Amino acid sequence: MKIKIINPNTTQSMTDKIAASAKIVASSGTQIIAVSPQMGPATIESYYDEALSAVGVLEEIRQGELLGVNAYVIACFGDPALYAAREITSAPVIGIAEAAMRTASYVSNGFSVVTTLQRTVNMSWHLAHRYGATPFCKNVRACDIAVEELELPDSDAYRTIRDECKKALVEDKSDAIVLGCAGMSDLCLKLQNELGVIVIDGVTAAVKQAEMLVQLNLKTSKVGDWASPPVKNYTGILSGFGIR
Amino acid sequence: MKIKIINPNTTQSMTDKIAASAKIVASSGTQIIAVSPQMGPATIESYYDEALSAVGVLEEIRQGELLGVNAYVIACFGDPALYAAREITSAPVIGIAEAAMRTASYVSNGFSVVTTLQRTVNMSWHLAHRYGATPFCKNVRACDIAVEELELPDSDAYRTIRDECKKALVEDKSDAIVLGCAGMSDLCLKLQNELGVIVIDGVTAAVKQAEMLVQLNLKTSKVGDWASPPVKNYTGILSGFGIR
Amino acid sequence: MKIKIINPNTTQSMTDKIAASAKIVASSGTQIIAVSPQMGPATIESYYDEALSAVGVLEEIRQGELLGVNAYVIACFGDPALYAAREITSAPVIGIAEAAMRTASYVSNGFSVVTTLQRTVNMSWHLAHRYGATPFCKNVRACDIAVEELELPDSDAYRTIRDECKKALVEDKSDAIVLGCAGMSDLCLKLQNELGVIVIDGVTAAVKQAEMLVQLNLKTSKVGDWASPPVKNYTGILSGFGIR
Amino acid sequence: MKIKIINPNTTQSMTDKIAASAKIVASSGTQIIAVSPQMGPATIESYYDEALSAVGVLEEIRQGELLGVNAYVIACFGDPALYAAREITSAPVIGIAEAAMRTASYVSNGFSVVTTLQRTVNMSWHLAHRYGATPFCKNVRACDIAVEELELPDSDAYRTIRDECKKALVEDKSDAIVLGCAGMSDLCLKLQNELGVIVIDGVTAAVKQAEMLVQLNLKTSKVGDWASPPVKNYTGILSGFGIR
Amino acid sequence: MKIKIINPNTTQSMTDKIAASAKIVASSGTQIIAVSPQMGPATIESYYDEALSAVGVLEEIRQGELLGVNAYVIACFGDPALYAAREITSAPVIGIAEAAMRTASYVSNGFSVVTTLQRTVNMSWHLAHRYGATPFCKNVRACDIAVEELELPDSDAYRTIRDECKKALVEDKSDAIVLGCAGMSDLCLKLQNELGVIVIDGVTAAVKQAEMLVQLNLKTSKVGDWASPPVKNYTGILSGFGIR
Amino acid sequence: MKIKIINPNTTQSMTDKIAASAKIVASSGTQIIAVSPQMGPATIESYYDEALSAVGVLEEIRQGELLGVNAYVIACFGDPALYAAREITSAPVIGIAEAAMRTASYVSNGFSVVTTLQRTVNMSWHLAHRYGATPFCKNVRACDIAVEELELPDSDAYRTIRDECKKALVEDKSDAIVLGCAGMSDLCLKLQNELGVIVIDGVTAAVKQAEMLVQLNLKTSKVGDWASPPVKNYTGILSGFGIR
Repeated sequence: MKIKIINPNTTQSMTDKIAASAKIVASSGTQIIAVSPQMGPATIESYYDEALSAVGVLEEIRQGELLGVNAYVIACFGDPALYAAREITSAPVIGIAEAAMRTASYVSNGFSVVTTLQRTVNMSWHLAHRYGATPFCKNVRACDIAVEELELPDSDAYRTIRDECKKALVEDKSDAIVLGCAGMSDLCLKLQNELGVIVIDGVTAAVKQAEMLVQLNLKTSKVGDWASPPVKNYTGILSGFGIR
Repeated sequence: MKIKIINPNTTQSMTDKIAASAKIVASSGTQIIAVSPQMGPATIESYYDEALSAVGVLEEIRQGELLGVNAYVIACFGDPALYAAREITSAPVIGIAEAAMRTASYVSNGFSVVTTLQRTVNMSWHLAHRYGATPFCKNVRACDIAVEELELPDSDAYRTIRDECKKALVEDKSDAIVLGCAGMSDLCLKLQNELGVIVIDGVTAAVKQAEMLVQLNLKTSKVGDWASPPVKNYTGILSGFGIR
Repeated sequence: MKIKIINPNTTQSMTDKIAASAKIVASSGTQIIAVSPQMGPATIESYYDEALSAVGVLEEIRQGELLGVNAYVIACFGDPALYAAREITSAPVIGIAEAAMRTASYVSNGFSVVTTLQRTVNMSWHLAHRYGATPFCKNVRACDIAVEELELPDSDAYRTIRDECKKALVEDKSDAIVLGCAGMSDLCLKLQNELGVIVIDGVTAAVKQAEMLVQLNLKTSKVGDWASPPVKNYTGILSGFGIR
Repeated sequence: MKIKIINPNTTQSMTDKIAASAKIVASSGTQIIAVSPQMGPATIESYYDEALSAVGVLEEIRQGELLGVNAYVIACFGDPALYAAREITSAPVIGIAEAAMRTASYVSNGFSVVTTLQRTVNMSWHLAHRYGATPFCKNVRACDIAVEELELPDSDAYRTIRDECKKALVEDKSDAIVLGCAGMSDLCLKLQNELGVIVIDGVTAAVKQAEMLVQLNLKTSKVGDWASPPVKNYTGILSGFGIR
Repeated sequence: MKIKIINPNTTQSMTDKIAASAKIVASSGTQIIAVSPQMGPATIESYYDEALSAVGVLEEIRQGELLGVNAYVIACFGDPALYAAREITSAPVIGIAEAAMRTASYVSNGFSVVTTLQRTVNMSWHLAHRYGATPFCKNVRACDIAVEELELPDSDAYRTIRDECKKALVEDKSDAIVLGCAGMSDLCLKLQNELGVIVIDGVTAAVKQAEMLVQLNLKTSKVGDWASPPVKNYTGILSGFGIR
Repeated sequence: MKIKIINPNTTQSMTDKIAASAKIVASSGTQIIAVSPQMGPATIESYYDEALSAVGVLEEIRQGELLGVNAYVIACFGDPALYAAREITSAPVIGIAEAAMRTASYVSNGFSVVTTLQRTVNMSWHLAHRYGATPFCKNVRACDIAVEELELPDSDAYRTIRDECKKALVEDKSDAIVLGCAGMSDLCLKLQNELGVIVIDGVTAAVKQAEMLVQLNLKTSKVGDWASPPVKNYTGILSGFGIR
């Protein structure tokens, strides 16, 4: 089975990290293909970055269709272009935010999301509402860390995140942590060990969720609003995206 | 990996059917142990049946703990005793209703639940609320079939269910069907083929979800309200259920 | 009129306390029958205890039907087996959590529930949602008192509860207190006097609510999902619970 | 105990009917005082009528305070001036809509409100939201009957209401009916007999609820936003309403 | 275009202030008519005041109809009698709370309401729910200032409000302030300058919203529950309010 | 004042139509600049089209910033890229769906949205939730008309839309219609005349809303999550979108 993981930003070191996390949990028969798009933002830290990252995400889905990919993972906690991606493939497409929150809900009766910048907190709440995770999500907390800091070898990021997680457990009375950024994927085990509670990383959760859907032969429904988009001309730098 | 599937009712033919469905989708390294409890109702069709089935479910969890079970599935669409079960094990425990609804939400943007008796419709809606599935659940429909009818070789059950599914697709404008009873597990593929849409069966969804959580090493959180229950005496016919 | 109060746990001293509270408020024509079941947990402090207490509650309802009981009260703030109980009688059945919260909503525009253990807080919120009390419930607070402590003559329980109530009034800006445990019933008046605000105890509220429904000749509806459960065999230690 | 029932409209025949219904269910020690205000609309069928009826309701509360009334009932299904009334008395004040909906929720797991004019349907839904009754309220249906028609001896009102109730039971799959107008109070038993399901009338429910609160010595909380209104001058035709 | 602004209280200095604010933003072709009713409370600080202020508001609407007013603004943050007012005119009627909250939602992704007394906080939340503003309203905060204090030249009101706004920005992580009282209208610009964030005043927002609706020729719908109230007799001091 | 209206699709005839509608309602001092982007889909009928249209919308905002535009309107009922657009300008940005729904809520107590394709119905409901319009939105109905059909001189589109509106008024008991597509803008008055109810077009509502915000000097808040996006490199065909 081929699972294509699309890191919607163009930072290769993060893609590599994501790929490494994914490969650790992938089943033996699963081939992990992890990519960054050929275009778009270096990191995703705003609605603007998120909106524009859709182009690269959708391009990678289109490329994946030529290769017979069996399932896709969109590896950014904003789940950019998730529903759009589902329209142009019948393979399952999983966002890491939905996978993280839904997976957490099986083992936690009240988790906190710990994410990077305060400005993305509303976005995470919006997703929690969309996915019906609000009964299980006690709080969304920001660390005031820029995404690129997670890539710097000498940064204090780990410590800052760990301290915010500790505050979450005490102040929110949470029983688990959901990591709110694909770039935190490599910190998951270390945090889990140090905190002594379940820590859920969306990348690994989404990979296993994708495998599960493929094994169950469950594909994106094509009879409702995720059916293939109507045939259409596209122009300008997007002319290649037309639907035939 | 050992996955124990607990059919909360005592109808062995249904347990066998559930086991068969589970084995079809289980991974090669997974051992499926499917049981009915030594006590309780023949089928579950009321709040009363559901409440009393908890005894058998919890007894089977306790037995499972002695055998080193890695994950449990509660195979009744009312998810009886789910949260109680989670308290007495650190292995993941999955209800088929939560697994069916959450799994459906990855591939459907609006499904209908098709269940047996009208009197269980409120119960399914209550679960949809508890699990945050209401944004994806367009309707819950009953077929007015008793659960035991699903076990009769000559019953019209299949046809009745299929017709209700067809109505769901047209009237609810749904794009997928969620089967609202473990006893429908064997009808899933046949329905999917005849209806031409995704049909989700909670038993198979829960088995794969259980495998996934074990593979990710995600266990039930033990620091919140799913921690082990306080030590306590039990008396009478329940004296064996005391917590030490 | 006979009102049977079922204390779902087996601690007789608590049952006695509940009976005493009930008798103070009961009308002259009301006979209070307060019982603990012959089986089950000594106190209820977890989902596990709550699930298993259903057996004793339902057995007591069945016994009550033989005696022509006019209304039942389930005297545990988790309202265990409430909907199941309603199915096997046409007499009204009242849970003390629903009675406390709904009664409070007539005299308070924002109350705090003060309960025993933190691990039951989610459960109370879940009930508040089920009964539609969330517009009136500002907070649910735990005192970190075990239920059995409420039975100890020398415990600090009263002081701890009173202090949490005081915090509720200031921090939650609440205008009333709802006691979150049947075992606090005897503290209600003392707290009300010392705090100077309305304090609502579910036991007394439920008894009066039960009287009211009987006087209005309002019985549990038998045409929807609280109709009598379908006829069914039960086996094992539950064989006596079969429905004929 | 004195319970004052305020029919917020000025139609004496309706007040008489309400008083009769109330007296049937009142306890022997309860004195029912039923009044229409000295001012205001003949019937209440609009937001306009409801807003202006507040003057008379509040005047009657003020008069009641001079007589030592123990509890008040506002007998119009829009519950006009309910929260305002609570501010100027420490006696409980009960609206018939809240009493009907909350009382119904003890014996019904899904009722339909049957009311007079379509233009009041939104209002009833708004109250259902305010009181947290939406989990139990399946539908609000109008009969297209003017309120005054309920007072005409030869009207078809009974038949029209009964037919709408029948539709509610079938189409809404409801298990009980809540009458959406104080003027239907006298039809309650007849409907219940003919329909064979529970029918809840807000007037009788509110009277018993009021008795219950008095017997429990529960008064309107005076420490939150139902505390006495700040001292204030009133002018013009409302000069008598000033707060000292 | 004539816009009539009704200050529902009788404090002329506040009406003058409101008029001044309105005139600053009104378009050149707009005539601002600002009035206090001939009756009612000096300020509005309770449900009681709010309910009784309806009489004056509705009287002023009725007067306005004789003058051909094109749109009305109700200038109290409780939006008293808003829906009733809409029934007796086809001109648009705008409440300052709805205008403030909806206008804020175009430029803020999470605002705090800063209002006068704690006892009105529930009321503001209720309006936020009614108008669908809860996704955008992070908090409602009170300053513990009486409304009349806003009229005193030497009061500390400005400083108190400003400090509460500062707390809102930090503690609620809000990005804008909504002023929760018409009497704060004159402080808006000063606060905006000192705080460095958007501050929304309902009076000016409502005036512009009213102009906009008139320019779009959008009138209050007369086919639903805001249609003209049914013809009706009124008696007593309200006899002038009858509908013909 | 310069208002730039961005039609997110590339169909010039629709842009012309939108411009014409806008100019009819624009104030005399308002300059309407209506554009289609240089790139993107011919029409927007799927999540895919909507996601990709963001590029053109954001490019047009960037161009607008060079020209000193005072406010922007995004003229597609999916409000594509709305929050992203707000980040890169301090001018107000208005989506036609939010403007239509919020404007409708001032004059209607229950409207129906009538849109083009069934596959966009979920999207409209999602927006209704996001903007808090669900209390006022009774239904979203599709006409099964492709967007481009609205541009064909001989199409039956008008008749089909009108008939769906009529059904909405009867079946949904709505009191107003909200047009669910910018391409229906020119039909608004004709529909209003023929249907005899308020019909709200998002284009004209948004233009007036934009004028109003400019006149009130209310700009997009720059202190929360709509602050300017963090500085960032963009690559590939999106390299021009980098933030400095």
